[in-house]
Amino acid sequence: MTTRRVYFDNSATTRMAPEVLESMMPFLTDEYGNPSSVHYMGNAAAAALRKARKQVADSLGCLPSEITFTSGGTESDNLALIGGSMACKDSSRKRIVTTAIEHEAVLEACEELKRRGFDVTILGVDKEGYLDPSVLDDAMGEDVCIVSVMAANNVVGTIEDISELSKVAHEHGALFHTDAVQGYTKMKIDVKKDGIDMLALSGHKIHAPKGIGALYVKSNTPIVPINFGGGQERGLRSSTENVPGIVGLGTAAELAMSTMDEDIKKMTKLRDEIIDDMLKLDGAHLNGPTGKRRLCNNTHFRFDGGRGLDTVIRLSKEGIAVSAASACSAGSTEPSYVLTSLGLSPEQCMSALRISLSRYNTEDDVRYLAEVMRRI
Amino acid sequence: MTTRRVYFDNSATTRMAPEVLESMMPFLTDEYGNPSSVHYMGNAAAAALRKARKQVADSLGCLPSEITFTSGGTESDNLALIGGSMACKDSSRKRIVTTAIEHEAVLEACEELKRRGFDVTILGVDKEGYLDPSVLDDAMGEDVCIVSVMAANNVVGTIEDISELSKVAHEHGALFHTDAVQGYTKMKIDVKKDGIDMLALSGHKIHAPKGIGALYVKSNTPIVPINFGGGQERGLRSSTENVPGIVGLGTAAELAMSTMDEDIKKMTKLRDEIIDDMLKLDGAHLNGPTGKRRLCNNTHFRFDGGRGLDTVIRLSKEGIAVSAASACSAGSTEPSYVLTSLGLSPEQCMSALRISLSRYNTEDDVRYLAEVMRRI
Repeated sequence: MTTRRVYFDNSATTRMAPEVLESMMPFLTDEYGNPSSVHYMGNAAAAALRKARKQVADSLGCLPSEITFTSGGTESDNLALIGGSMACKDSSRKRIVTTAIEHEAVLEACEELKRRGFDVTILGVDKEGYLDPSVLDDAMGEDVCIVSVMAANNVVGTIEDISELSKVAHEHGALFHTDAVQGYTKMKIDVKKDGIDMLALSGHKIHAPKGIGALYVKSNTPIVPINFGGGQERGLRSSTENVPGIVGLGTAAELAMSTMDEDIKKMTKLRDEIIDDMLKLDGAHLNGPTGKRRLCNNTHFRFDGGRGLDTVIRLSKEGIAVSAASACSAGSTEPSYVLTSLGLSPEQCMSALRISLSRYNTEDDVRYLAEVMRRI
Repeated sequence: MTTRRVYFDNSATTRMAPEVLESMMPFLTDEYGNPSSVHYMGNAAAAALRKARKQVADSLGCLPSEITFTSGGTESDNLALIGGSMACKDSSRKRIVTTAIEHEAVLEACEELKRRGFDVTILGVDKEGYLDPSVLDDAMGEDVCIVSVMAANNVVGTIEDISELSKVAHEHGALFHTDAVQGYTKMKIDVKKDGIDMLALSGHKIHAPKGIGALYVKSNTPIVPINFGGGQERGLRSSTENVPGIVGLGTAAELAMSTMDEDIKKMTKLRDEIIDDMLKLDGAHLNGPTGKRRLCNNTHFRFDGGRGLDTVIRLSKEGIAVSAASACSAGSTEPSYVLTSLGLSPEQCMSALRISLSRYNTEDDVRYLAEVMRRI
């Protein structure tokens, strides 16, 4: 294919940063030891884990001992929700409160918790995807063990008010978990200032590799493991550690923090240009929030009478990679539950198009997109 | 360090094959799409998954649709045991039968199943680590859902008679799972001929990367997921697929199959030379099986009055990487439960030394080991 390739599907997954791959290479070649081994090869691997754990901890403002490496965002969310709830299973707190627009990793973990005897309250959001803290407050009670609200939505990019929501959760004696898979590195998060007890993040959304993630768990938070074996990660996540992946995640975290302010500024500018360009097209509308509540790398549109999947395929033929609603439901012909939760009709949902940015996108990319969109 | 480096801890983890890394590189750089995405980047990733799934399936003699990719051996064992048992939870079969020398991934999954209302029978083995099929037969009943016996032991390398054991399990209407993390590619396994319903394998033990594994599940075997989210891997293992890791596992599987006969022959020869060399040392004894029941890459010794950990550290200073009992328990000061199950005393266990080979070890490595062992 000699077509120009422009990648605008960064909420689905991202290109690995060259610095990330470079930092991983020793551990993909000569330094292949098992961190549990006592010899020099094991020691080198264990030292690499320590360094990466500190890099990730620093990016969140927490202690290295509060970071548990997992296989990705889904596992991190599952560990927070299921591991956190199961630790309370003999208490009177047996209800989880979450929102209708969470990622499936949260909502399906809640379904599993229902099978294990927990109750689940799913809160609606407004038409921009925003959960008002007072709505959470009304739903709370002494029976809630965990409140789980995403930092930013994966479909329409709504930034939730996690520091206010965590206050509400704590006022009622519950823990606060946030799925920060989309928000991490694209908005300011400080787990201490924001009052977060658990936070899930994923490597492949921040230019680190696929197959690696982490869960922040505040010290002394009750949690039990959801997988079982050799007792790695202080007993919370058994499995030989994915050393190259962990090293890559550490590098990506440090790199993102060092350029975050300028990256956010750059992506916000490109995002607003895309919104301007797209809204000039006949019958185009913006989905989700306007203004400051929108993640810097997210745009999301619907088109009167259009079909999102058709547009994705036509753009793909022109070398432009975008999504209909989200990658996780990309193959699906059902309307996105996130979009229906915002009050959109099934027809409106089916015309959805998500264009999501990374720090590697350029003004040229945006111009090419505008040109192709006008043409097709 | 200018000391010669000789790696004899291949049961803990292995060096990635150069061919494996080479096959992964496109997916660590330009081909970074999410396999669920509908555009050209997603299509390329999905095609890579299909190829790798067939490579792994071919190595086991099964269908690609019978392979589920996981984050490693621990998750594969957990999914087989917990996912397989939970699928029977409303039946009268609520007992798991396994052995005392399984990996912690199996034994700790069984502990979790006890918490979920299952019974667990743990069978003893003989002093070579061998489970007699008649011992299994005596323990069986109509209440058993899963029999789980490892293909080969991780500490002393005992090869179990999985084709006979699976027959016994099936005669009693139970499913047969095998943890083949150590055995896979180092002994002949054909899941159809061997009557295996579920088989767990790990990438990093076969020169593929850490953080990737697979579970074979025979078509129509009842099993439910143990993690919850976007429904990848036909709903059995949610999480964005680790494309580079999966590609690496596929390459490693194909490569191992193409050289398996000569690799086994070579490792067996080196193994027997190491055993000869070591048994010439004062007070040295071989642990585990003699003869054909020993995995081609495993040797395991004890030393009268010696301390395994001290030897590991002294060998490490000479550039030689080995283990005391196994890597998973390497930091532990408790005697290995596998060794005590073979009838060894705590003192004998603490003097244990495991020297494990890969296809990359050479005659020179073996000579250097013998020379250093005589010296220290």
